Amino acid sequence: MPENQIVFIGAGNVATNLAFAFLKAGIKNMHIHNRTEQSAKQLAERLKCPYSFNFENIPENADLYIIAISDDAVSEISKNKILKQKIDNNLVVHTAGSISIDVLKLLSGNYGVFYPLQTFSKSKILDFNKIPVCIEASSEFNYNKLLEYASQISDDVRNISSEQRKYIHLAAVFANNFTNRMTGIAEEILKEQNIDFDILLPLLQETFDKIKKENPNKIQTGPAVRNDKKVIEMHLNLLKNKPDLQKIYSFVSKNISEKAH
Amino acid sequence: MPENQIVFIGAGNVATNLAFAFLKAGIKNMHIHNRTEQSAKQLAERLKCPYSFNFENIPENADLYIIAISDDAVSEISKNKILKQKIDNNLVVHTAGSISIDVLKLLSGNYGVFYPLQTFSKSKILDFNKIPVCIEASSEFNYNKLLEYASQISDDVRNISSEQRKYIHLAAVFANNFTNRMTGIAEEILKEQNIDFDILLPLLQETFDKIKKENPNKIQTGPAVRNDKKVIEMHLNLLKNKPDLQKIYSFVSKNISEKAH
Repeated sequence: MPENQIVFIGAGNVATNLAFAFLKAGIKNMHIHNRTEQSAKQLAERLKCPYSFNFENIPENADLYIIAISDDAVSEISKNKILKQKIDNNLVVHTAGSISIDVLKLLSGNYGVFYPLQTFSKSKILDFNKIPVCIEASSEFNYNKLLEYASQISDDVRNISSEQRKYIHLAAVFANNFTNRMTGIAEEILKEQNIDFDILLPLLQETFDKIKKENPNKIQTGPAVRNDKKVIEMHLNLLKNKPDLQKIYSFVSKNISEKAH
Repeated sequence: MPENQIVFIGAGNVATNLAFAFLKAGIKNMHIHNRTEQSAKQLAERLKCPYSFNFENIPENADLYIIAISDDAVSEISKNKILKQKIDNNLVVHTAGSISIDVLKLLSGNYGVFYPLQTFSKSKILDFNKIPVCIEASSEFNYNKLLEYASQISDDVRNISSEQRKYIHLAAVFANNFTNRMTGIAEEILKEQNIDFDILLPLLQETFDKIKKENPNKIQTGPAVRNDKKVIEMHLNLLKNKPDLQKIYSFVSKNISEKAH
């Protein structure tokens, strides 16, 4: 009997990092499918495994099918009849933060979610060890199977429902996308004054070091939490030609201030 | 002639960290003044130096007076006649991000700004080496003197005008206070779902690691930059009982989306 096979549907940031994590864990029998040949080929060559770009050529009877494509595209692909035939009631999972487990019912009687909570890129293969993997499955048998796979690549596997996962995804937008934009706004403000962004790096480092150790709400500092109206007014005035940033500044300040008082 | 003396007006987070940095650089002749005896005494004891809590007892003819108190309080103290007598035209600086150099004219003909860009706390003495120190002075002579002091504690000393400093302070509010609040909001969202905040730490670490290497505006990810309206709507719906967070979510998303498209 051949070694259990994992088939990836998708060859993007998540698929790339997941596939390398499994490879590192000793799983070599993988297959990459992607709708564009180039992406499928690129990843398959890095992994030294076969690939396909036509649903007809997806292997049948794999142990696990991992749909690692954008949240938007998961529902669409769940309706694909050829994919359903290929999966043939084997275990299929998706990796999307915002999509319910239920969409996969259309593809198989055995389904689940395998959601690694991290921001990935193809060009940087992350160490999966500490990355939380949120799993959910249609049955205890499938759950245990996913648990076994997840435990091979991460020390932090968690049982998370679709409902909880939606909130985790929302929290991640604040913690990742919005913190990134806040520093992006800082970069823009400095650039206009011909000041290098690197002046902020020690401050960002310390900000992050503190958050690692304490609940961020307990260590909030700055003019808003002190309710220092003079400084807040001066800052709003400095942003007078940037109404969008002014709005963000005042809403976030108001929110910090109300939380504190 | 005795060793040059530094007098601190203030015994808070900034004064504490600055004084320890100077001590580490070999400057032992310091004096701590604070309006409350307890704070002055506490810091002075840690530094093994004298202290005062009454303006009459501030030493005269020190080489450098450092006013390290809240931005709000700097203007007030600049009007103090006894302090002016004590300084007696020696060099006086403040450490406030949002306050112009000019307020110190009232205290001395020799004045400047010594602004370390970092978030400090009394209980954690930071390594000053990599902390940017923004200096500004009323004359070239005073500038060079501040440059010499600053270079003893930091490798990153910068010539920054009062106008630039205001913008740096504003940028720091976005990069420090607002990123902290974004992660605080994430913590609140997770807490309501009984999910530990630590699930976000690897994501936060990677977010920060990326910002260190690249302009945050170039690495923006998430539903807003992809203009993924379905996910954005779902998130706004999850926040339906939190109108303030809903507003922050939509303004920041709109700002990210407009920046990208």
